[in-house]
Amino acid sequence: MKIGKIGERALINEIAALVAKTADKQSLGIGDDAALTKVSTDCWLVTSKDMLVQGVHFLLPEITAQDLGYKALAVNLSDLAAMGAKPRHAYVALALPPETETEFVLSFYQGMLELAEPFSVSISGGDLVASPGPVIVSITVQGEVPSKQALLRSGASAGDIICTTGPLGASAAGLLLLTHKIDCPPAVRAAALQAHHRPEPRIKEAIWLAESGVVTSAIDLSDGLLKDIREILEHSRCGALLEAEKIPLHPAAAEVGAAMGKPALELALNGGEDYELLCTVRAADFLELAKAYEARFSQPLYALGRISAESELKMITKEGKGEKIEFTGFQHF
Amino acid sequence: MKIGKIGERALINEIAALVAKTADKQSLGIGDDAALTKVSTDCWLVTSKDMLVQGVHFLLPEITAQDLGYKALAVNLSDLAAMGAKPRHAYVALALPPETETEFVLSFYQGMLELAEPFSVSISGGDLVASPGPVIVSITVQGEVPSKQALLRSGASAGDIICTTGPLGASAAGLLLLTHKIDCPPAVRAAALQAHHRPEPRIKEAIWLAESGVVTSAIDLSDGLLKDIREILEHSRCGALLEAEKIPLHPAAAEVGAAMGKPALELALNGGEDYELLCTVRAADFLELAKAYEARFSQPLYALGRISAESELKMITKEGKGEKIEFTGFQHF
Repeated sequence: MKIGKIGERALINEIAALVAKTADKQSLGIGDDAALTKVSTDCWLVTSKDMLVQGVHFLLPEITAQDLGYKALAVNLSDLAAMGAKPRHAYVALALPPETETEFVLSFYQGMLELAEPFSVSISGGDLVASPGPVIVSITVQGEVPSKQALLRSGASAGDIICTTGPLGASAAGLLLLTHKIDCPPAVRAAALQAHHRPEPRIKEAIWLAESGVVTSAIDLSDGLLKDIREILEHSRCGALLEAEKIPLHPAAAEVGAAMGKPALELALNGGEDYELLCTVRAADFLELAKAYEARFSQPLYALGRISAESELKMITKEGKGEKIEFTGFQHF
Repeated sequence: MKIGKIGERALINEIAALVAKTADKQSLGIGDDAALTKVSTDCWLVTSKDMLVQGVHFLLPEITAQDLGYKALAVNLSDLAAMGAKPRHAYVALALPPETETEFVLSFYQGMLELAEPFSVSISGGDLVASPGPVIVSITVQGEVPSKQALLRSGASAGDIICTTGPLGASAAGLLLLTHKIDCPPAVRAAALQAHHRPEPRIKEAIWLAESGVVTSAIDLSDGLLKDIREILEHSRCGALLEAEKIPLHPAAAEVGAAMGKPALELALNGGEDYELLCTVRAADFLELAKAYEARFSQPLYALGRISAESELKMITKEGKGEKIEFTGFQHF
């Protein structure tokens, strides 16, 4: 049934029933003017909000409502992960054309629940309004991190090892598949679309890394490695030397890139939306940390360069020269 | 200059400089993946988010960017007021067409500052994205209220006095002036448009009322008295008897209503967006409270009816009969 017909009240009741299972015992006031929650006393309250607009950040019907719900929450949780924070609450505002089917909204919430439940995120409030055109999703997430463990962008210093939690470029490959006619094996297509529509926020990894005490800065890879590392460099007032050969490339990036005449490295550097963590680690502690990380998560922590004292971003390519590189990354306007 | 030309980074820097004066000493991480803030230990963290969409919730250029910024923050702060909470932080996401002028964005923020500064609200983060069409504003506000003082919708019980903090209907009159050609005196027009574009969130009044300990429930009047009181009745599982003659009507509602052939009472009951508080007070404490309120705020606390044990909403009109009334109020879809 269309929202314009079922009406706001009935739809909110259905949503409330759906998200009730995520309810936090430390909360009150659901359905009231605002949500009431409690935060631990020795923690920072960590708040992030991301807005996703149809036609700009996602395409319909290329993404299903369920994947959209999953992804919208994932990209927000990824911001909390980038601070080393444990997520606690999500607030969801949706602007929808009145002719939207109720099922679309409920599937969207189902997708969110697929992430909210395993990570104990309580969907605690929000807003539901009419849109004259595009579907708009605005999610605010709250989490907490012990006061001394927060991972800021500003903590990197010369000598730190730059590393990431997973191979890059698959999400950009997925976007290429959605926007171009590309012939590629079904398994590659599936992997690329999975990466694009269902990124895994590195929450557990981030909390573990924050607890280690040797991670000096962090950001999540949303706009592309080159643009995102620039954020760390600007906030930390330093430079970096990346080793192109060490940047982990997702196999799907190589296969889809090849079909489009784009090197996988380009997708990894400028593609964005991988939602892996990019962090810096004190050099003296890196080997031990990487070993423990791999033992804990059965995945490597990929080292891909070092922070330098100069205020430039350079990259060593196959030929071994340190060349200054241009970045593009995702431009929001 | 247009946003598409100045670019995201330069615009964010200008915004950051503008909001720096609102910075909270208990905060960290501005410009990072998420904002870090502290909350008192014996308080509820109170979170609300409202989304405003061009063409649905506001009209451009009928409202100026500055008024839009003011109003967008005001309606969010009003939700915190309805919980008796002191506002602390605001997070602002804007979706804007790339051809939007930079001045529009900065004026929008100026408008927010006009409220943020006097109420010590720190603008602590947000998001800036492209929109394919409408301007979209999504604000999340956080505040805090001592654990036992939160004003819920669910606390009303039979006998309680229903009251409001100000005269109603002026905002609906303002909307009529924007959407119809109506001849009316300049002073009336100015008052109605002021009420529609620059509602005053009842923050100080709400905190004072929450501290009194005798307010049993509260809501802010956003969708119209009849629709909003229904929320209290549903959450508190009770009914109400309103006295039409006692509902305070704004003079602008009477003048503009007359020109449109609508009684001012209709604007007050169904118009919405007055952002006055509607609350219920224990009957035995009402007179004393109202006297102290008037002494403190130089405005009356208007009593307009009583909570009843029956599960119906009735209104006593001039003729003195308790008639069951239909409500319309603002329908979101």
